[in-house]
Formats: sequence, C-alpha cells, structure tokens
Amino acid sequence: VAIILYDLAGADEKRRFSPYCWRIHMALKHKGLPFDTKPWRFTEKDAIAFANSTTVPVIVDGDRPVADSWKIAEYLDAQYPDRPALIHGDAELHLTRFARHWAEGVLSPLLLRMLVKDINQRLTPKDQEYFRSSREKRLGQSLEAYTAGRDQAREQFRQALTPLRRILAEQPFLCGDAPAFADYVVFGPFQWARGTSPYFLLAEDDPVFAWRERMLSLHDGYARSFPAG
Amino acid sequence: VAIILYDLAGADEKRRFSPYCWRIHMALKHKGLPFDTKPWRFTEKDAIAFANSTTVPVIVDGDRPVADSWKIAEYLDAQYPDRPALIHGDAELHLTRFARHWAEGVLSPLLLRMLVKDINQRLTPKDQEYFRSSREKRLGQSLEAYTAGRDQAREQFRQALTPLRRILAEQPFLCGDAPAFADYVVFGPFQWARGTSPYFLLAEDDPVFAWRERMLSLHDGYARSFPAG
Repeated sequence: VAIILYDLAGADEKRRFSPYCWRIHMALKHKGLPFDTKPWRFTEKDAIAFANSTTVPVIVDGDRPVADSWKIAEYLDAQYPDRPALIHGDAELHLTRFARHWAEGVLSPLLLRMLVKDINQRLTPKDQEYFRSSREKRLGQSLEAYTAGRDQAREQFRQALTPLRRILAEQPFLCGDAPAFADYVVFGPFQWARGTSPYFLLAEDDPVFAWRERMLSLHDGYARSFPAG
Repeated sequence: VAIILYDLAGADEKRRFSPYCWRIHMALKHKGLPFDTKPWRFTEKDAIAFANSTTVPVIVDGDRPVADSWKIAEYLDAQYPDRPALIHGDAELHLTRFARHWAEGVLSPLLLRMLVKDINQRLTPKDQEYFRSSREKRLGQSLEAYTAGRDQAREQFRQALTPLRRILAEQPFLCGDAPAFADYVVFGPFQWARGTSPYFLLAEDDPVFAWRERMLSLHDGYARSFPAG
C-alpha cells in the first residue's frame, strides 16, 4: 500500500509549492517508498484533523498518520531503516538542523517578500481570501505593499546564500557527494518559489543555480516535472 | 616538545584576537596538545616566511611548519588520531565547512564594520599604519566612516545569528553535546570582537550569549583568560 502525502496545492491541483511538503516529496523519493499525493488547500483544515494537525505535510502510512515535516523524516528513517537514510547519524543531524534553521530563519523570510503576491494568485478563491487576510494581518500591510521591495530582498537573498555557494565550490551537495535531508530542507524554499512565481531568483552562473538544477534532476527529474512559474 | 603557534597580537602582546588563530588555540586545547604562542604582528611577514605564509596562524610542530587554520586542523587530526578529533567524519566535515562559510561570509563582514576602528587602536604604531592603509583601500573609505554604521550592523548581526540561536535551543553546541571544530570556527569571530573592543554584541538573554559563555569556560576558562575589551 502506497503512503499518502497530503500536499498543499493551488487552484491548479498539479501546482505544488509548500517548502515543507517538498522536503517530504524528496524524502519519499530518496527512500524509494511508493506514495500518492492528495492535493490539499489551506482552508481544508477538516481534511487533516484526523492527524491532529492544521498544516501539511501529513502522511498516512497504512493506517498511521504522521504530521510535521521534521517528524515525518524521523519517522521514515526509524520505520524504514533498510532504505537509504535521510539523516546519517548524529553529525549529519546537526548539519541538518543548522541547514533547517538557516532555510527557515534566513532564506524563507526573504523569499516571502519576493513571492507573497504571486503565491496568492496561484490559490483557489477561497484560499486567496484566507491567505490574504492572515498574511496581511501578520505582515501589517497589504501583500502588494510588502512585495514592492522584492528586488532589494533578492539582493539580500543572493548575499545570504554565500555559505551555500561557498560549500558548493568544495562538494556537489550540502551533504557531500550525494544529497540527503539537509539538501532537501534547503531545496524546499526554492521549490516554493518555482511553483508559484516566474520571478528569477538566481543568476545562471551562480553555483547555487547549478545545485538547484542537480536537485531538479534527481530521481528522473521528479521535482522538475511539476508546473513552474 | 611543545607546538609553537604564531599568533596575531596587539601593542599589548597579551592581547590576541585573530579569529583564525582562535580556531587553533581552541583546537590545540581540544586535542590536549601542549603549545606555546609567539606574538606576531601584521608587519612581521619575514618572521613566518619559513612557512611560505604571509598570515597567521602558523604552527611549528617539531621542525614541521603548517600554515592556514583549516590546513592546521586537518594536520592535527591526521597527525594525532589518538587525541579527540576536531572533525568527526565526513558528515561533521560538511557541518564544519558550512559553519566556516557562514562565519567567514556572513558574521565576519558584519563584525568588521563594528570592530575596525577599535582593532586599529589595539595595534602597534607600525601595524596601525599598515592596517589603516590596507583596510581603507579595501573598504574605499576611512575606518571611522565605515564604522559609523555599526549600530545597524549589530542589528543585522543579531538577525544573522538566527540559525545558531535556534539550533542552540536543541543542543548545547553546534556539534551536539560537546564542542568540536565547527564550534571553534564560529567562536573565532566572537573572540576577534572580545579581544579588540568593548562594544556589546549580544543581549544577555540571547542563547548565543550563553553559548559564548560556555565556550569561554572550556578548558578551565582558557579563552576567558585573555585580555578583553
């Protein structure tokens, strides 16, 4: 029986763009576990209440629900120890935590400024209403006003990528010769952008661009096969 | 025979503040290797020419010179494999590289803005002349003009520490339950500040402050025993 992944979707249900869900798309591919996705919208809280969660990703493995991308990754490594590990031991755990907090605390806030209006336009009308009012309340301004500074945010974003850019001069992936969960965690925000916006984040000669291409090509181009822009 | 560490010093030779040398102070303590330091100034290039280097740290182990903090760390782990490792395996290598590029590419540039005038005041007259002219050329402005924006740089610095702050909510050191080279690499810039300037970097309730205290307390308060401010 395939694992079910509840996955944030736009008005076009093929459009998948949650950075947290992307961690799990890539994690399931990494472990070679068969899975199906169920498109889910922000306003469908009832549909995942069975997992005691109001956000995705949620997976159901057999009859067992697991919510929260970090907990899902831990669950998959614990439940399927014979499959390739997402986090290889304690030292990689620390790398993955650091990468997570860097992605969530530095990259994602800058991306939100670049993407927020485009994200909204990808959503169902009902989700647009929810997204606009909750985000405008949180940001203290309209989505349009907030995103007006996005060229500046892009400069800061490219600057903030310095540590990733430099490590990619030494090794092809954050985790070394092959990707693992820390790479997927950093890739998530890039898929958030790719799935919602045509806005160009990276110069083509940026080593981070080449890394993103490698990530898009993994598993027969799995991540690339989703609608972009 | 004790290892010799050539170590950047101020006009007061007890004042040691190179972030790269501090990596090696801590590394040698970590490995429990006896060492003596030789104070060195920016303008004493001749004194380390034997190591084919124009910068410190340089160590001499027996009759073998090794320059460059990263190469010294690799050398120490290779040469003294029975001592506690600075970098435990490949995954911790990747963590350490990421931490290095984050410290060098994000933290140090912000610190330079906060510290540059104070650093200059700590140097010998001859080093002051060298430091001011080389740095003003690089920065395209006077040290005084550059450092005038330091309160803003401090805000950015505290913001940039987000990933470290968050991982410290999960574990006491970047490397987990005990510090290793990645912690020393991130600690280096803080010792650069401590050894040159009274400027307060961190709020006392910041988890990064508590981590810095733990680092200062390692090995019987070794790092704390040097002149500060």
